[in-house]
Amino acid sequence: MNRVDLNSDIGESFGNYKIGNDEVVLRYVTSVNIACGFHAGDPQVMEFTVKKALENNVAVGAHPGFPDLMGFGRRNMVISPEEAKAYIIYQVGALNGFVRAYGGKLQHVKPHGALYNMAARDYTLARAIAEGVYLVDCELILMGLSGSQLIKAGQEVGLQTASEVFADRAYTAEGTLVPRGTEGAVIHNKTVAASRVLRMIQAGKVTTLDGKTIDIKADSICVHGDNQEAVALVEHIKKVFQDAGVKVTALNRK
Amino acid sequence: MNRVDLNSDIGESFGNYKIGNDEVVLRYVTSVNIACGFHAGDPQVMEFTVKKALENNVAVGAHPGFPDLMGFGRRNMVISPEEAKAYIIYQVGALNGFVRAYGGKLQHVKPHGALYNMAARDYTLARAIAEGVYLVDCELILMGLSGSQLIKAGQEVGLQTASEVFADRAYTAEGTLVPRGTEGAVIHNKTVAASRVLRMIQAGKVTTLDGKTIDIKADSICVHGDNQEAVALVEHIKKVFQDAGVKVTALNRK
Amino acid sequence: MNRVDLNSDIGESFGNYKIGNDEVVLRYVTSVNIACGFHAGDPQVMEFTVKKALENNVAVGAHPGFPDLMGFGRRNMVISPEEAKAYIIYQVGALNGFVRAYGGKLQHVKPHGALYNMAARDYTLARAIAEGVYLVDCELILMGLSGSQLIKAGQEVGLQTASEVFADRAYTAEGTLVPRGTEGAVIHNKTVAASRVLRMIQAGKVTTLDGKTIDIKADSICVHGDNQEAVALVEHIKKVFQDAGVKVTALNRK
Amino acid sequence: MNRVDLNSDIGESFGNYKIGNDEVVLRYVTSVNIACGFHAGDPQVMEFTVKKALENNVAVGAHPGFPDLMGFGRRNMVISPEEAKAYIIYQVGALNGFVRAYGGKLQHVKPHGALYNMAARDYTLARAIAEGVYLVDCELILMGLSGSQLIKAGQEVGLQTASEVFADRAYTAEGTLVPRGTEGAVIHNKTVAASRVLRMIQAGKVTTLDGKTIDIKADSICVHGDNQEAVALVEHIKKVFQDAGVKVTALNRK
Repeated sequence: MNRVDLNSDIGESFGNYKIGNDEVVLRYVTSVNIACGFHAGDPQVMEFTVKKALENNVAVGAHPGFPDLMGFGRRNMVISPEEAKAYIIYQVGALNGFVRAYGGKLQHVKPHGALYNMAARDYTLARAIAEGVYLVDCELILMGLSGSQLIKAGQEVGLQTASEVFADRAYTAEGTLVPRGTEGAVIHNKTVAASRVLRMIQAGKVTTLDGKTIDIKADSICVHGDNQEAVALVEHIKKVFQDAGVKVTALNRK
Repeated sequence: MNRVDLNSDIGESFGNYKIGNDEVVLRYVTSVNIACGFHAGDPQVMEFTVKKALENNVAVGAHPGFPDLMGFGRRNMVISPEEAKAYIIYQVGALNGFVRAYGGKLQHVKPHGALYNMAARDYTLARAIAEGVYLVDCELILMGLSGSQLIKAGQEVGLQTASEVFADRAYTAEGTLVPRGTEGAVIHNKTVAASRVLRMIQAGKVTTLDGKTIDIKADSICVHGDNQEAVALVEHIKKVFQDAGVKVTALNRK
Repeated sequence: MNRVDLNSDIGESFGNYKIGNDEVVLRYVTSVNIACGFHAGDPQVMEFTVKKALENNVAVGAHPGFPDLMGFGRRNMVISPEEAKAYIIYQVGALNGFVRAYGGKLQHVKPHGALYNMAARDYTLARAIAEGVYLVDCELILMGLSGSQLIKAGQEVGLQTASEVFADRAYTAEGTLVPRGTEGAVIHNKTVAASRVLRMIQAGKVTTLDGKTIDIKADSICVHGDNQEAVALVEHIKKVFQDAGVKVTALNRK
Repeated sequence: MNRVDLNSDIGESFGNYKIGNDEVVLRYVTSVNIACGFHAGDPQVMEFTVKKALENNVAVGAHPGFPDLMGFGRRNMVISPEEAKAYIIYQVGALNGFVRAYGGKLQHVKPHGALYNMAARDYTLARAIAEGVYLVDCELILMGLSGSQLIKAGQEVGLQTASEVFADRAYTAEGTLVPRGTEGAVIHNKTVAASRVLRMIQAGKVTTLDGKTIDIKADSICVHGDNQEAVALVEHIKKVFQDAGVKVTALNRK
């Protein structure tokens, strides 16, 4: 491939609480994942964020999570497939209300935090999420960890999928992320990080923490804008891509 | 007019908590107002209720309320117009997610409880609600108290409106409901109640508690199904309407 | 032993939502576990329930759960020990506010639902709960599943503990409850159920589902009052205990 | 008088959301009002904040608010006196759990935001709040706007009260604060502000916006630490008090 999407999570403020650096992020990315009020975000934040994304011509995705504001959606919860499906429809529907209100079209859905991680491994949960997304709008793209059960489930229900990769994270031989806290889990050298994602895009390969080479599909790269190092990384990645002829653009809806 | 809609609030259960008699209500009414998760309802309840309404060929409306589950949306809250508009878009969008998921089309929006009552009197709030509804889908019908600021605001933003009347409640000379607790506020005689609403539909008139005759528009009658008396009233009303040639049918979307 | 406590979960209503049969339960039991607003209960429900319990001379316990009203505290959540400890102090403190307000003294703490079940198996979580209870008031009794990690943790932090048994549930050879849904998990014959708990109290033994005899400590029996069968069971148990000279009384604070 | 308390609102973070500058504030004030989880604060934030306050030898108060995290407790809600009383007992009880856990003694209760403002004017609401505080612990001090209905209600139920004044706000002839947004409502000159509060403490007088002199009681001054100007003001006030022989100390529990 010679194209890739850059995505980032935004719209995570709530009421009087401000978080993130959304204005900066919107200048760098091609897609955003906007919180839907369960783990973060509130209706006014969602409205403001959707308008800003549309003004910046950035593609909008829903970022549904667990109903756990106190834990920011980062804590595993054991919910039934029926609950998962209903939570997805509710949150995607709510965000879609704002997107339609301001003349946009929702591009994708990417689960947040613990829901994302659990759905990467648990096919039953992943399937319920995929079915919920399909029911709301069968043209939505389901974004998930490259090689995960969520991507598999999305394909099986008939959704277009977007495989997400991480520039600054090490991979295991199974294609999963090496957990933070493990030695070598985070790649701090931006040159190394950029060349890794370039290889994922061009060759579909990545070298794992234990030195193996595995296949990996890279439709979108997750980036952040909440600190200087993160911004420097995304700027460097974009420059490397430009030099290599990789086009940075939103997901390619078929 | 020779037609009228019968509407009822349903889908007010939450998690482990069951409330209402939705199965019964769905046999009598032509439209339902489904709670959207702020004052009542949760995603699974919404999904179940939307499916049941569609199966029963009953028209579906959203029933957004204040973010106050503990008070069931019945407590006045002073929110800004911007907050009101965002809360409407969020809740209507969320319910619409389920309606679209199951192949239906959302017919109307009727605010709940304290939000309904405040919007009946406060044009600024009413206008914000109307704008929110219009933004989500300009073909939605806005339902509110007959003669209220909400109906006025709906018309001014360009929405089709539905004027709601109450069979078992007394009216003031200003066309508002006599507050519960006031002597004569509630009409317990079902024959009297039925003949009052019949006159509202056919002649556009109602006699107020202090004996005056005022104009009133009646597009939809609010009914309940949670006790025997309520069910007896709606059954009696439907029989009186049948004898009088008044067709009971969902709202007439232009 | 020749004494035992009967406990039941009450105060689980929330706002406009009524649940349970608390008035009936209060006539049969010697201790109650009152929900604290996280998985069920709200401040007014807690106030009302505490007053009713004190009026009925029933000993009051706190029944803290996960912050998951939508799931009624029945869904496993992965929380840190620090979170668990803080959630316990918060909820026990809140309930204790009402108990002190009305001149009572809090007797015990029994975790609810998924928190109870997870703390039965997970010592780290159990220890955090026990530490939270100890910090609020070191004279509180910690109630948990007989033979569980929660009882062990309570003893290790220096709390008095109360081992809870179930009259109508089968036990595994490890002393845990046979999961509902398994053949034989629930004992429907009240004569069998009563004789089983009588043996637990008098001999400290129970026969497991696979026919073994194991040791079990029975300080308190969990009973319900929300249906006729449950009430019939508790009435029968109390009669059997009376005939056998087993005194039914609240926990024995040392 | 020759003594005064300086108080500030802290512990307003929630989950992943950080707010305020609590570490700085704790160096300047003699009392803190800690959020109790309804409008702000969560159990871990409360635990951390209580520990920090006790470590700094700052007196701890509860800062209960409306159940409105999305509005930060700043939106008026119409609640019944029974609801208000129960909400107070719940929140004060919860915070007291942490204070007792770490060996402290709760000094006072000061309602937050819209609840504070409504209780300043509405005696019925104020009375319900005062009764709730009294029920939890009749030795607690009730802090409210100087000259308000809340102070009156506190005295009538038998509580010790603390009259709060504002250094940087103008007063009306009725002794209420001139609403923000009105010309002259906020006093930006720190010399003027300090001399005004010094006069309130020493002479019990303040000059109103329209030039009158009225009586005012000043037991505690509300200060902030979330920006440089606020910190400069409190530093200046403390210096002026030192020079004038006014002792800055926590409330004087009788």
